[in-house]
Amino acid sequence: MDLSANSIECLRAVANGDLKAIDWLAQSLSRVEALNPRVNAYTLLTHERAMREAEVVDALQRSGAPLPALAGLPYAVKNLFDLEGEVTLAGSRIRQTAAVATEDAVMVARLKKAGAVLTGALNMDEFAYGFTTENTHYGPARNPHDTSRIAGGSSGGSGAAVAARMVPLALGSDTNGSIRVPASLCGVWGLKPTFGRLSRRGCFPFVHNLDHVGPIAASATLLAQVYDVLQGPDALDPACVATAVQPVSAQLGDGLAGLRIGVLGGYFEDNADAAAQQAVDLLAQALDARPGRVQWPYAAQARAAAFIVTASEGGSLHIDDLRHRAAQLEPVSVDRFMAGALQPAHWFARAVRFRRLYREAVNALFTQWDLLLAPATPCAATTIGQPWLQINGGQQPTRASMGMLAQPISFAGCPVVVAPTWPDAAQGLPIGGQLIAAPWREDVALRAAAWLEGLNAQTVGARSVTC
Amino acid sequence: MDLSANSIECLRAVANGDLKAIDWLAQSLSRVEALNPRVNAYTLLTHERAMREAEVVDALQRSGAPLPALAGLPYAVKNLFDLEGEVTLAGSRIRQTAAVATEDAVMVARLKKAGAVLTGALNMDEFAYGFTTENTHYGPARNPHDTSRIAGGSSGGSGAAVAARMVPLALGSDTNGSIRVPASLCGVWGLKPTFGRLSRRGCFPFVHNLDHVGPIAASATLLAQVYDVLQGPDALDPACVATAVQPVSAQLGDGLAGLRIGVLGGYFEDNADAAAQQAVDLLAQALDARPGRVQWPYAAQARAAAFIVTASEGGSLHIDDLRHRAAQLEPVSVDRFMAGALQPAHWFARAVRFRRLYREAVNALFTQWDLLLAPATPCAATTIGQPWLQINGGQQPTRASMGMLAQPISFAGCPVVVAPTWPDAAQGLPIGGQLIAAPWREDVALRAAAWLEGLNAQTVGARSVTC
Repeated sequence: MDLSANSIECLRAVANGDLKAIDWLAQSLSRVEALNPRVNAYTLLTHERAMREAEVVDALQRSGAPLPALAGLPYAVKNLFDLEGEVTLAGSRIRQTAAVATEDAVMVARLKKAGAVLTGALNMDEFAYGFTTENTHYGPARNPHDTSRIAGGSSGGSGAAVAARMVPLALGSDTNGSIRVPASLCGVWGLKPTFGRLSRRGCFPFVHNLDHVGPIAASATLLAQVYDVLQGPDALDPACVATAVQPVSAQLGDGLAGLRIGVLGGYFEDNADAAAQQAVDLLAQALDARPGRVQWPYAAQARAAAFIVTASEGGSLHIDDLRHRAAQLEPVSVDRFMAGALQPAHWFARAVRFRRLYREAVNALFTQWDLLLAPATPCAATTIGQPWLQINGGQQPTRASMGMLAQPISFAGCPVVVAPTWPDAAQGLPIGGQLIAAPWREDVALRAAAWLEGLNAQTVGARSVTC
Repeated sequence: MDLSANSIECLRAVANGDLKAIDWLAQSLSRVEALNPRVNAYTLLTHERAMREAEVVDALQRSGAPLPALAGLPYAVKNLFDLEGEVTLAGSRIRQTAAVATEDAVMVARLKKAGAVLTGALNMDEFAYGFTTENTHYGPARNPHDTSRIAGGSSGGSGAAVAARMVPLALGSDTNGSIRVPASLCGVWGLKPTFGRLSRRGCFPFVHNLDHVGPIAASATLLAQVYDVLQGPDALDPACVATAVQPVSAQLGDGLAGLRIGVLGGYFEDNADAAAQQAVDLLAQALDARPGRVQWPYAAQARAAAFIVTASEGGSLHIDDLRHRAAQLEPVSVDRFMAGALQPAHWFARAVRFRRLYREAVNALFTQWDLLLAPATPCAATTIGQPWLQINGGQQPTRASMGMLAQPISFAGCPVVVAPTWPDAAQGLPIGGQLIAAPWREDVALRAAAWLEGLNAQTVGARSVTC
């Protein structure tokens, strides 16, 4: 029995005493052992901690006490989440000599409290800057559906680990698309919540104004259950403005009645190849979206502004390393970080100012729509090392452009669930579609995701891997 | 009878029918007529509107209906507040050809609703950039206590109009000290509220992250009453995060019992001349402050960061005019705006990042103190055109440095009341002291201000002018 195939059943089995957490963990670890040499998703295995956490769950079960929501669930985290006693690499070589973290990141602490079992830390683009996880220091994360291809980034290890069924859940972070791109390219479910919803405390920062954290999971139902565990205020993260938990997993069966669902056109069609357009068509059909195309306001400008804010804040954050040991930084990032730090302040100030107006325009769009669909990536996974994307006759640099359909959405702060699809035109590779809701309406996107999962369609949802 | 001498009594007299609003207005306008040619506080008289508003109050009084809180109170506003049907100059020549405002700024609308009577718009530094109101286009605002001296800025017309008893109330704005500096140099009361407390909608912007609006008044009691009228949420100003009105004017008699009052040392002593230090000593004595000196964290760094944020955002806001018609801008501002727009984004990003840590450090200080005292300006009013300040052996440019003791406080967002004092060492000129409270605790600063006013001391409080 493949215990990772249906994690919801496994959670129930652990709760009933039909499955030991330690056995679930053992199968997870054996898949890591078998597949990680090819996939390169993990940079750290927390074997002892995992054993300890699984034993705590099993002891609790034996005691007859009720188990917490995620008891026994094996998971791993992008290596920018603090793990007590471990060095937080954030994908870098420079931080190999940093002090170990003295406590878990807030998200890790909440998963631990919910009974989940941490198996390790995952590969990523250095300092989360990139959409391909072609990490020079730790090697590229490889796509489990074709290991000659990228897993996407910057949470590439998170997408690859879940797609390879090493774990049913991984945490990632998304500044411009870093959860959505690997979810799309690896064919798994991902949630980038509303900006300000989940605490980022204990995560290595990238861009204060844009960083989000969130889950990548093997099922939409699990995604929602994990999201409910991750929710809650955190007075110590100034960007976390959520004041209360708004549970969604109990409403997943509510269906789509009353939802005004549309498909984004313009920028989101122009920058999507045939396979990515087919991905959205599959979702639109399954969700019975209204005909026609919806225009998202200022998408290209929002991407430009997001780049400016990202490069400025990111470059500023790393200025000391850029000055004194640039040779130890990711070679494909260093020039962009330097350029970002030296941009005129006017660009940065204008980008921030534009963002306020942009968010108003986007919010206005959601007075007419409840859910909007767009591809998560312009195409399926490219080959590792492939420098350019060819999209509709245009040429774009792969590492910077794989997130071009994701960036405008996160710049507005909207919550997005990525739903995996398998379009014919992608020839066996997955492409994710973005289910985009109004700020603070994760419930709408997750209900639609659960609906899609419930269809058990051939072409929509996570698939077993072949690697 | 000088109706401006005790506006609280006048408000009561209007409510009782003992004073007509139109008579109060007439006295106000006659003082403007007599004194403004020397003081240059007004750039616009709204004579017809004032008559109309006063007549509405008088008609309401005759009808026997209860009058609103500020019925009949004459006031004027810094010329960056939108006034329906008038051009909002913001101190510039460039905006002389701008379209007229289609509605009043939120603060003006609230005063109107409370029965206050608008008399006109007031002189200021161009685009609120400066601490001296040496406006090249409209001439300098002059200090009513010595018209060869500056009134301070950028709300110089507001300070001068109240000090000259033209009106008992003026509205100003404060980005780095622009309410507190003129209140200090003109010897009147001023309130810079908590950042995010009052709506700025309908005001010409300067620095989104730092702009505050607030009142300047002839008495501390009036300051509190006006503040209560100005309060309230505004969903349409993204920076206005106040969710409810928290009235303070009813608590003004609560006294000082239980307040831990301290005096700031270090930076705030080093950059204050003998007269400014004496100003704080007068307040410390009157308020029975604890002995010793309190260290405010990172004051000099906060000032540097405030300069960077101000020049970057301000320069960015005016970039098109800087590019295409710089010759029409204030000559003493244009170089600083240009330099600001072209600063490296890293400086701006780091200043914003520093601010988050800085605010935490300041908030921590207020776990030990309720009210902290510091001079509002390094010295009393300088002569118009005087380029340098000599403070404790150091030399500082007047226009940029008159706010150097105000900047660190607003960068932290704390509310401040400026209390006028008349130290011997200032030789007949006033200097204000800052009564600084923790964010959202305007009530504490205003209670202390009312206490000071209640002492009827020779050396503390607003004085009649000699001009």
